[in-house]
Amino acid sequence: MSETTEVERDTDELIEASGRAALRLANADEATRNDALRSIADALRANESAILDANARDVEAAEEMLARGEYTQALVDRLKLDAAKLEDIAEMVESVAEQADPLGRTLAARELDEDLELYRVSVPIGVVATVFESRPDALVQIAALALKSGNAVILKGGSEASESNRVLHRVIREATADLPDGWAGLVEAHEEVDRLLERDDAVDLVMPRGSSEFVSYIQENTQIPVLGHTEGVCHVYVDDDADLEMAADVAFDAKVQYPAVCNAVETLLVHESVAADLLPDLVERYEEAGVELRGDAATREIVDVGAATDDDWDAEYGDLELSIKLVGDAYEAVDHVNAHGSKHTESIVTEDRSTADAFMTGIDAASVFHNASTRFADGYRYGLGAEVGISTGKVHARGPVGLEGLTTYKYYLEGDGHLVASYSGEDALPFAHRELDAEWELGGE
Amino acid sequence: MSETTEVERDTDELIEASGRAALRLANADEATRNDALRSIADALRANESAILDANARDVEAAEEMLARGEYTQALVDRLKLDAAKLEDIAEMVESVAEQADPLGRTLAARELDEDLELYRVSVPIGVVATVFESRPDALVQIAALALKSGNAVILKGGSEASESNRVLHRVIREATADLPDGWAGLVEAHEEVDRLLERDDAVDLVMPRGSSEFVSYIQENTQIPVLGHTEGVCHVYVDDDADLEMAADVAFDAKVQYPAVCNAVETLLVHESVAADLLPDLVERYEEAGVELRGDAATREIVDVGAATDDDWDAEYGDLELSIKLVGDAYEAVDHVNAHGSKHTESIVTEDRSTADAFMTGIDAASVFHNASTRFADGYRYGLGAEVGISTGKVHARGPVGLEGLTTYKYYLEGDGHLVASYSGEDALPFAHRELDAEWELGGE
Repeated sequence: MSETTEVERDTDELIEASGRAALRLANADEATRNDALRSIADALRANESAILDANARDVEAAEEMLARGEYTQALVDRLKLDAAKLEDIAEMVESVAEQADPLGRTLAARELDEDLELYRVSVPIGVVATVFESRPDALVQIAALALKSGNAVILKGGSEASESNRVLHRVIREATADLPDGWAGLVEAHEEVDRLLERDDAVDLVMPRGSSEFVSYIQENTQIPVLGHTEGVCHVYVDDDADLEMAADVAFDAKVQYPAVCNAVETLLVHESVAADLLPDLVERYEEAGVELRGDAATREIVDVGAATDDDWDAEYGDLELSIKLVGDAYEAVDHVNAHGSKHTESIVTEDRSTADAFMTGIDAASVFHNASTRFADGYRYGLGAEVGISTGKVHARGPVGLEGLTTYKYYLEGDGHLVASYSGEDALPFAHRELDAEWELGGE
Repeated sequence: MSETTEVERDTDELIEASGRAALRLANADEATRNDALRSIADALRANESAILDANARDVEAAEEMLARGEYTQALVDRLKLDAAKLEDIAEMVESVAEQADPLGRTLAARELDEDLELYRVSVPIGVVATVFESRPDALVQIAALALKSGNAVILKGGSEASESNRVLHRVIREATADLPDGWAGLVEAHEEVDRLLERDDAVDLVMPRGSSEFVSYIQENTQIPVLGHTEGVCHVYVDDDADLEMAADVAFDAKVQYPAVCNAVETLLVHESVAADLLPDLVERYEEAGVELRGDAATREIVDVGAATDDDWDAEYGDLELSIKLVGDAYEAVDHVNAHGSKHTESIVTEDRSTADAFMTGIDAASVFHNASTRFADGYRYGLGAEVGISTGKVHARGPVGLEGLTTYKYYLEGDGHLVASYSGEDALPFAHRELDAEWELGGE
C-alpha cells in the first residue's frame, strides 16, 4: 500500500466528517431541514454583492482564457451570474423546501406474525458527492436537494468557477450553522476528487454533471454507484399510420425547441411509405430553422440533403443537426433504436395503438413516448419537482430523477422477543405475512 | 486496444445473444413465463438420473480433493445432490411460478396535461449475471428467478460443480426451447468471467454468491452494478430497560440457531448496569451450546471468558464464536455499531420505546430490529417470497431482496401530439400534474 499524501489525508478527514454528519442529518426532522433551506435562500439574497463580486472575478479570468481560445463563449455564458439569476437560485431553494418530504415514508408494512411487524421506510442514502462543470448554480441546487433528502454532500465544481463556488459554499455553511457540522463539504483540487472516487467505503453515490467525456471519466474511475447519463441519442419514429401534421410538429419540436439538451432528437426514423408525403415540407421547415440535415440513400432520393455516414447513427449532435433514415416498418425502427439509442428517450408518432405498444414495449429505454415530443423527458415536466438528474443506468433510478432518487430504504422490525428457533424445525410456527395498512412512526403503536 | 482472444469473442457472442433474448423475454407474458418454469420443474424430475450421475462425478472428484486436503468437508456437503434435494429444487421452481408477477405493475400514473399521461411501469433489468460457488441448486434458483422477472441470465458456477451445472443447464434449456434462444447462458472458464465483468455496456447486474473474499473480488473487478453482500457483522444490544429473560433468549437465538449465516450475531453489546444480572446465566447457556466467548475488560470482571482484541469487533466469525462488550448507554452502542457493523442487521432489546427509536434511527443498516432476533433478516421470513440475495449496498435494493430487486422501471408517456414549445416561453401552458388512479396496459385507454 502506498503512503497517503497530505491532500489524501485532508480529503479523508472531510469524507469522515461527512459520514458523521450524515448519521445525524438523517434524523433531522422535516421542519429543521426546511428551515435550513429557507435560511440558505435568505443568505443568498443577503450576500448578493459578495457572490456577484466573486463571480465577476471568475468571469474575468474565463474571458482571458476565451481571448486565448482556451474556453468557449458558451462556457463563459454558463459561468456568469447576475442579480436576476441569483434570485432564481434563491427561489429554487425555496421551492425545494416546499416539496413533499421524501423521508420517513412507509413503503411497505407487513405483519410477519402476531406482534412481529415489518416496516420498509424511506431514509437518506448517506454521503452523496457531486462533481460538476462550470455552472455555479449546480452547487446550490445539489446542496439543496441533498439537504431536503437528509444526505450529507461533498461538492466539487469546475476550477473556472472556483471563486463563485467558494463564496456560495461559505454562504450555505454559515446559513446552516445549526445543522451537523460537515454536512456540506467543498473540495477543489483534482487530487481530492481522485481520492474521493477511491473511497467507495465511505461515499454512497456520485452524481456527475457535465459533458459525456466527463461523466464517462467518473464512471470509469470509481466503484461508487454513479447516477447520471453520458449520452442522449434519442429518436422520433414516424409510422405509416401517423397523423403527418402531428408527426411534423413533434419531430420539429424535438429537435428545434432546444437542441443542446440530452432529450433532443438526433435521428428521425420515417416509414418508407409516408416519407414522400412527410419529408419535403418538414425538411424545408428544418432548414428555415437552420438545422443541418443528413440522410440515408433512400431519404436522399426524396429530399436534397447531405449523406449520412454510419457514424451519424450513433452521434449526439447536441446542436441544430439531424440525421434521417427510412425504415420498412416499426420493427425495423425498434431494432435501429435498440442498436443505436442510448436508452434515454424514444418516441413514436402513430394513430395505431398496437403499433405504439410494439414500439414502446420493444425498446429498452428509460422513457418511451407515443405522440409526444422527446423534450418532455425532464423531472419538472414529469411532475417530480426538483430534478437530481437524468439516469440512463438501469438500477436504482431511471430516467428523470427527483428527490426519491436520493433516498434508499431501511427495514424496521418490531417484535416482542421473537426467536427464529420458533419458526424452524419440526414444530415450526407458520408466518402470517399479512399486509398492514399502517405507517411506521417514532414512539410507535 | 489489445486484440481479443477466441474465448473473449465466444463470451462476447454469448453476451450479445443474451441481450437479444432479454429484449424479447421482457415481453413474454406471465403465462408463458410461468409455463416455462413448470416445464423446468418437470424436466428436473424427468432427468433425475442424469443429474445425479453428473453430480456423483463432481462429488467423487471433490472427495479426492478432500483427501488431499484441498477441499473442506463443508464444500463437499454443499455440492452433493440426492433425489430428495432435487425434488426440493423442483418444488422451489414451482413456487417461483406461483409468485405474483413482478412485471407490468404501474408504480405511478400522472396526468401532465389533458391527454398527456405518464406511467411508471415495472420492467425487467435486462441481462443479469450470477457467479456462484459450489451449490448447484444456486444455478437453478437464479435461473428461475431471472425467468420469472423476464431477465436473460448468464450463469457461472464453481469448477467443482461443473458436471452438475452442465447437465442442469442443458435440462433447463431443453425445457424452455420455446423461449428466446440465449435467455440462459452458461460460462465455465475464469477467462470468460473476466470478459463478462468487463462488459458493463451489455450486462446490467451481477449477483455473486459465495465467500466475502469472492464477493469482494467481483466488486473490485467490474463497473457493472453488484447486488450482494460481503460481510454480516451483526449486533444485539441489551439495554438497561430490557426484559432480561427476553434479552437472553434473543441473544442466544441470534447466535446459536444457525451460526454460519450472515444474519447471525457476532458481537453482543450489554448496558453496564444489567451486565451482572444478564451475563452469568447467558454465558453458561452459550458455553453449553459450545459457543466460544471473548469479552472486553469490563465483561471479564463479571464472567470468566477469553479476552477480546480490537480485531474481534470487526470479525465475522460465521461460527459458534461471540464477542461481548459493555457500553454506558444506547448511544455508545449506536456508535459502536456504526463504527464496526457491516450495515446488515442490528437489534436492540428494550422495553423503552424511545430508546428503541434512538437505536433504530441512529444506526445505518439495512435492517434494524426491536425485541427480535437478527436471524429474521431473510427474504422468506420477510414475506418476499423467493430471495435473490441480501444486499448491504445502499442503492437499488437493500436488505433481503425478492423478485422486485430484479426489476427496474420504464416511463411510458401517452400524448396527442404534445409539444414542449407549448409549455415554454411567454404564453407557456401550465402543467396539471394530477395523480391518476390508472394502470398502464397494452391496447391502452
